[in-house]
Amino acid sequence: AVAAPAIAQSMPELKWRLQSGFPKSLDTIYGAAEVIAKFVSEATDGKFQIQPFAAGEIVGTPQVADAVGNGTIEMGHTCSYYYFGKDPTFAIGTALPFGLNARQMNAWLYHGTGNDILNEFYAKHNMYGMPAGNTGVQMGGWFRKEIKTPQDLQGLKMRIAGLAGMVMAKLGAVPQQIPGGDIYPALERGTIDAAEWVGPYDDEKLGFAKVAPYYYYPGFWEGGPAIHLFINQTKWKELPKAYQAILTTAAAYANGDMLAKYDARNPAALRRLLGAGTQLRPFSPEILEAAYKAANEVYDEVSAKNPDFKKVYESVRGFRNEEYLWFQVAEYAYDTFMIRQRARG
Amino acid sequence: AVAAPAIAQSMPELKWRLQSGFPKSLDTIYGAAEVIAKFVSEATDGKFQIQPFAAGEIVGTPQVADAVGNGTIEMGHTCSYYYFGKDPTFAIGTALPFGLNARQMNAWLYHGTGNDILNEFYAKHNMYGMPAGNTGVQMGGWFRKEIKTPQDLQGLKMRIAGLAGMVMAKLGAVPQQIPGGDIYPALERGTIDAAEWVGPYDDEKLGFAKVAPYYYYPGFWEGGPAIHLFINQTKWKELPKAYQAILTTAAAYANGDMLAKYDARNPAALRRLLGAGTQLRPFSPEILEAAYKAANEVYDEVSAKNPDFKKVYESVRGFRNEEYLWFQVAEYAYDTFMIRQRARG
Repeated sequence: AVAAPAIAQSMPELKWRLQSGFPKSLDTIYGAAEVIAKFVSEATDGKFQIQPFAAGEIVGTPQVADAVGNGTIEMGHTCSYYYFGKDPTFAIGTALPFGLNARQMNAWLYHGTGNDILNEFYAKHNMYGMPAGNTGVQMGGWFRKEIKTPQDLQGLKMRIAGLAGMVMAKLGAVPQQIPGGDIYPALERGTIDAAEWVGPYDDEKLGFAKVAPYYYYPGFWEGGPAIHLFINQTKWKELPKAYQAILTTAAAYANGDMLAKYDARNPAALRRLLGAGTQLRPFSPEILEAAYKAANEVYDEVSAKNPDFKKVYESVRGFRNEEYLWFQVAEYAYDTFMIRQRARG
Repeated sequence: AVAAPAIAQSMPELKWRLQSGFPKSLDTIYGAAEVIAKFVSEATDGKFQIQPFAAGEIVGTPQVADAVGNGTIEMGHTCSYYYFGKDPTFAIGTALPFGLNARQMNAWLYHGTGNDILNEFYAKHNMYGMPAGNTGVQMGGWFRKEIKTPQDLQGLKMRIAGLAGMVMAKLGAVPQQIPGGDIYPALERGTIDAAEWVGPYDDEKLGFAKVAPYYYYPGFWEGGPAIHLFINQTKWKELPKAYQAILTTAAAYANGDMLAKYDARNPAALRRLLGAGTQLRPFSPEILEAAYKAANEVYDEVSAKNPDFKKVYESVRGFRNEEYLWFQVAEYAYDTFMIRQRARG
């Protein structure tokens, strides 16, 4: 009789709503919300129920951060950079152009102060965030025509947003914001000349190859984009410690699981795309170098106006410099040999 | 009154012992056991207690698999390949020479049937295994003299074990099995000519640079070694589903956390090692190619005798071929550009 209230207090019955920023058709990235909900339910014998909703079912993707912050919903699973318009600092939680690759992003978040300084920022929006997915380097997107030099970007209408859009604009392109479902007809009609989406597994479903056959890489604006689980900060603080631990580990499971799933699914999708006529093209060194320079200009400009951005950006920049000191040694040498050996058959 | 027994049944009080295969001095890899214990305790309000023991405290590292299988201890956190002597199939759970990199290993384990086929094998030893850590590519180790060609490996006494030792033996080297603490004096006296350990962060502590200044990369025998949490299979099956979920997600947290920690710590350690006179050297293409050929011969020989090995090896080999099809595109192009740009300052 003494123990019962303690148990009731430590494992209350909760029903939370999780608004995903993604449609169910993006099954890998949307699926992470289901993975989190499943583990939390199992770990609590069903006492802590999380119900995931596909993009737009409660609020639209652009409203997820506001809805989490004001408590309309308890949680969101979405990209921090979608809220770039509220404050550009949000962008860094997902990816900076020429930022960290997926492993480096995890290293920065978990062991390089990343989670801490991002949460100082998210707290201003009454949210607590934790990493809950990564896609790996994304592709550079689909282009109707080949682009070889920075000059070829002049006037190019490209579906791309946020900081990446600002970088593209500096290079003379015209960034367009178009929802996923409207990209195909826009490319087909020539309303836009190019569009970036995710990578082979997700891109294949939208059938871009038929209307924009040149598939460029790498998506230099997303070297290892993190997807966040955002929790209303007040609700987070009220959670029993046991539920905080369960949610933290379930999100960590989803974080590794999503990357593993993309890594397992992208190769076959790429093979099918190539078989269907997709023309794979690397961005030229000239384009990458011009974009790198433009990105640094954007960072200087935004930093000059926004101290939060400056603080988080400088943390990423310093960390990146250290990370590549190490990654250029054993990791890069290993992959280089394995890639060369594979090409030899 | 009705609810109480159900709660008691679903959240029993358990005290489990976890024998780590690692000494506390390897704080990153040993620390994963503490991370798992901490989260499991928090998630269960202290009802499921896991006590980690450092290498040798209950049984020695070479006995962990037996002790987990026969129930002397409930869990071990160790490298599957340490049990290579029981059956070479154990090696594949950790790393094959020229096998998968860390991300590919996770993709294979979680979404490429890896966990399933390994657990079919571990079940024969009454264990259930789950990934619980990864070091990333290891370094090739410390050499008293430079080695430039496969001829320089002739008669070289090197501290290296398992399949990697078999590969080195085919190249004419003489593999030696020496515990971590005995490596330094053996190198100093010249009893051995070379030794592999882990990577910059762990290697730095043992001070090898003073007695064997040539630090080679990559450790081609460990492209992305997984560390396993082994659980006595009978005990695992008896666990309430909630505890299984909690353990699974805590292990997944540790899995990502260890890699993030190594990635965050290795750069500064490498910088300090270089500052202290370590001579960084890549293995030459001739050595890597000779080792690749030797590794394939080893796999053919072991596969001919061991159907379990053959089955798991072929799964890894096929998966690796698909993975590098994808990794050579966006991932490799991104890292290539970032490494080049960093070198330019």
